[in-house]
Amino acid sequence: MEKTNKGALYGIGVGPGDPDLIPIKSIKILKTVDLIFAASSTKNRESRAVSIARTYIPDHTEVRILPFPMTKDKNEKMAYWQKNTQDILSEIDSGKNAAFLTLGDPLTYATYGYVLKYMKELAPDTSLVTIPGITSFQAASSSVNIPLVEGEESLLLISGVEGGDSIRKLSNHVDNIVIMKAYKNVQDICDALNENDLIEGSIGIRNCGMDNEEIINDVRKLVDNPPGYWTLVISKKKSLSSFNKKRQ
Amino acid sequence: MEKTNKGALYGIGVGPGDPDLIPIKSIKILKTVDLIFAASSTKNRESRAVSIARTYIPDHTEVRILPFPMTKDKNEKMAYWQKNTQDILSEIDSGKNAAFLTLGDPLTYATYGYVLKYMKELAPDTSLVTIPGITSFQAASSSVNIPLVEGEESLLLISGVEGGDSIRKLSNHVDNIVIMKAYKNVQDICDALNENDLIEGSIGIRNCGMDNEEIINDVRKLVDNPPGYWTLVISKKKSLSSFNKKRQ
Repeated sequence: MEKTNKGALYGIGVGPGDPDLIPIKSIKILKTVDLIFAASSTKNRESRAVSIARTYIPDHTEVRILPFPMTKDKNEKMAYWQKNTQDILSEIDSGKNAAFLTLGDPLTYATYGYVLKYMKELAPDTSLVTIPGITSFQAASSSVNIPLVEGEESLLLISGVEGGDSIRKLSNHVDNIVIMKAYKNVQDICDALNENDLIEGSIGIRNCGMDNEEIINDVRKLVDNPPGYWTLVISKKKSLSSFNKKRQ
Repeated sequence: MEKTNKGALYGIGVGPGDPDLIPIKSIKILKTVDLIFAASSTKNRESRAVSIARTYIPDHTEVRILPFPMTKDKNEKMAYWQKNTQDILSEIDSGKNAAFLTLGDPLTYATYGYVLKYMKELAPDTSLVTIPGITSFQAASSSVNIPLVEGEESLLLISGVEGGDSIRKLSNHVDNIVIMKAYKNVQDICDALNENDLIEGSIGIRNCGMDNEEIINDVRKLVDNPPGYWTLVISKKKSLSSFNKKRQ
């Protein structure tokens, strides 16, 4: 059987912002790969993941930004990602080792999931190595020094994009909730937290891990001061006063 | 006001096993602190967290193992942890910087949560710096190259210690479930997955991140071959065939 000399694809999570939160394994890989890919919107060619990892990328290493359209049109999205994956694959086929960077963790709400999917479809024998990364909600709980989940408790992780309905349905059955992207429907999210007596047990974190990180102790204030995309809420059934909610 | 020259406490998550999964920030801290604490059971003085981090701990740095009783007696547990926290505090009060090591992430099912709690009670002005770490379920999903959660999906993280009841209650309302500690009541967990058509979408990982890591594609096999403490199940509503469940 002919054995070709193909490269490998490394999926790397660079964490939420601080370059020092990247695992040493990923730093070693970034220093040795031939080529680095990352996603951007189709409107610009900027990648926050690349900015975070920049300090570990050798000057001579090519960084290629792949466009990902911010659209609800699933077919358009899929076409872009299939094409992007083919571009990555053609480099790997030529023997190059490549890394694909994502914010946070590569398998937690990340576009890398689509690369994986198409890569397995297009070339199931590709060597795929995923290295986990620190998520924004882990960094957020560390920032405020409040446990995400303890003992035999449960933790529910949801997207806030569709508002507070999951909170209404599930809050009676879970001990802790993390609401990612708590920006679009923040009024409805706050209403749902309020209806379920969770406002006092909630804390907001904006721009977690970035220079302009901000802790919002009263999440109702998120409504008056509309937050950006990088906003998450940690909500605990246990009273937050037992965790000394306010930062020192 | 008198200003004392107190040290700081760093909470550090060393990840599930591979020392290379530790963030560079934690490695830097481990090289500079005066003293390192970690938990063990009262029956031995071994700490897996210390073994994982060992390569980054200078020879001259003292490592002190604190006993944590494996008991259901809450008062006994609390007494130990209050005493342990006082021991840490007395070192910090004397001006030493100390790290407290935990497996995985310090704020996700970790004993460090109790240290935090008592530290805030006993000495609320202590400088507490928590550095997140990679969790076992992140490492597990990376091992099998299957996303934990995508798009606007939800993820439920539960302990399997109490069996399959949370799965029965919540599986209709969530897209993905991670069951930690799927060892004690693994028969009931499998029954609950089965009743909710989740068996085919589930994958087991034993000893994740360790040398003897094992992937169990058919989680029903966990029942015949009783797994140890370090067993988790990732369960997805989406068919796993779309993720090419079997590893290459």
